[in-house]
Amino acid sequence: MPAAKTVTAAVLLIGNEILSGRTQDANLNHIAKGLTEVGVKLAEARVVPDIEGEIVDALNALRGKYDYVFTTGGIGPTHDDITAACVAKAFGVAIHRHPEAVKLLEAAYEPGKLNEARLKMAETPVGAELVRNAVSAAPGFRVENVYVMAGVPAIMRTMFDEVKHTLAGGPPMISRTVATALPEGAIAEGLGAVQETHPDIDIGSYPFFRQGGFGVHVVLRGADEARLDLAVRAVVDLLAALGGEGTEVA
Amino acid sequence: MPAAKTVTAAVLLIGNEILSGRTQDANLNHIAKGLTEVGVKLAEARVVPDIEGEIVDALNALRGKYDYVFTTGGIGPTHDDITAACVAKAFGVAIHRHPEAVKLLEAAYEPGKLNEARLKMAETPVGAELVRNAVSAAPGFRVENVYVMAGVPAIMRTMFDEVKHTLAGGPPMISRTVATALPEGAIAEGLGAVQETHPDIDIGSYPFFRQGGFGVHVVLRGADEARLDLAVRAVVDLLAALGGEGTEVA
Repeated sequence: MPAAKTVTAAVLLIGNEILSGRTQDANLNHIAKGLTEVGVKLAEARVVPDIEGEIVDALNALRGKYDYVFTTGGIGPTHDDITAACVAKAFGVAIHRHPEAVKLLEAAYEPGKLNEARLKMAETPVGAELVRNAVSAAPGFRVENVYVMAGVPAIMRTMFDEVKHTLAGGPPMISRTVATALPEGAIAEGLGAVQETHPDIDIGSYPFFRQGGFGVHVVLRGADEARLDLAVRAVVDLLAALGGEGTEVA
Repeated sequence: MPAAKTVTAAVLLIGNEILSGRTQDANLNHIAKGLTEVGVKLAEARVVPDIEGEIVDALNALRGKYDYVFTTGGIGPTHDDITAACVAKAFGVAIHRHPEAVKLLEAAYEPGKLNEARLKMAETPVGAELVRNAVSAAPGFRVENVYVMAGVPAIMRTMFDEVKHTLAGGPPMISRTVATALPEGAIAEGLGAVQETHPDIDIGSYPFFRQGGFGVHVVLRGADEARLDLAVRAVVDLLAALGGEGTEVA
């Protein structure tokens, strides 16, 4: 069975506030779920501070390695918003006020309110294509395979949902989960054997701790529904053979 | 004023489940807050899948660049738990069953229950020092500047809290937050000027969207309380001069 090419992506979260612990990131999980839906494999994520050299280095490492890169944060009007300048530097192009973005901002602000700081939100690398959002006038943008989005979750989500369906994904990964009360240490050997006989299925084991006891979620992921089904049945049979029970959960 | 050396750290989250969107990571924020408390600056975080090459490359990049590296995930008994082997490979040392870890597991399991899979949880790179936890018998470990911890948050937290106070941190960063209803675009120019006159204070601007309107949290961070106080006052004065109000919030 020739496998379709896997389409990969990375996420780059830009912002001191996540690294200081002030903010619990909410963007990565939303992007991860959305990419999975459209058949794009999120292969790596990084969080970097608002430092030009760190952002440029991470952008260049990720955009060369993966099909898509999604950044969040650092596109507002203040001095600590340096993402657009960093993307321009990473691509070796100049930064300019994107004419279309200027028009969006002009339409959003009363006369006299569109000051220099706000016009900074119209700055993009030369050649960028805008990514609009439904919440605010300030757009995100795309340069080649890099999508630059806001950090505020409500805005980031409308931007990501705008571009999600334009991505050229592979066959979407289907995920199935089998829950058991058997401990991980009791199923590990058998589960490893199931993984070996189903190499095209990605089998993960995730212990959870609840009501004073451990249980395990066995998560099986693959693009081929029939082959995934065989692997799920193998796991359920294994758990029964070990004297336990495997229940498929949503 | 000669600045004390900044002590830096990176976090490496290991696990397909975060990248697939199945799991919302809860570990990074806990570690970030804890490092801030003890004066260690979290400078970067990465999420990588359960793939040996990716884990080894990330480990080697991060352990060379930062004073400390903290990993979470991949130290259980199942086939997808490959972190210990990857750390050994990154350091170029062999893996073995750590005698002390074997004793911990022997004490925790009834006779006959300590199978090969469970003994895998005693494997560490040669020379590692154990990191114990209060929830389960399976330990984490440390090799040089790399701390290897569990992925299950309840277990990771007891491991991290065990090592946190052994870290050689710099002066702890103090954080102050000023909230205002003025929009970011109105304060950006003045805030940039305050940042320029207070270069040793890290000033961040974080818009929030609530009850139909935007507001801004201006976060000021620094190690010197008196100098931080001057910068906070400058921000409050700026907001007043712009016809708004700045209220310090916890």
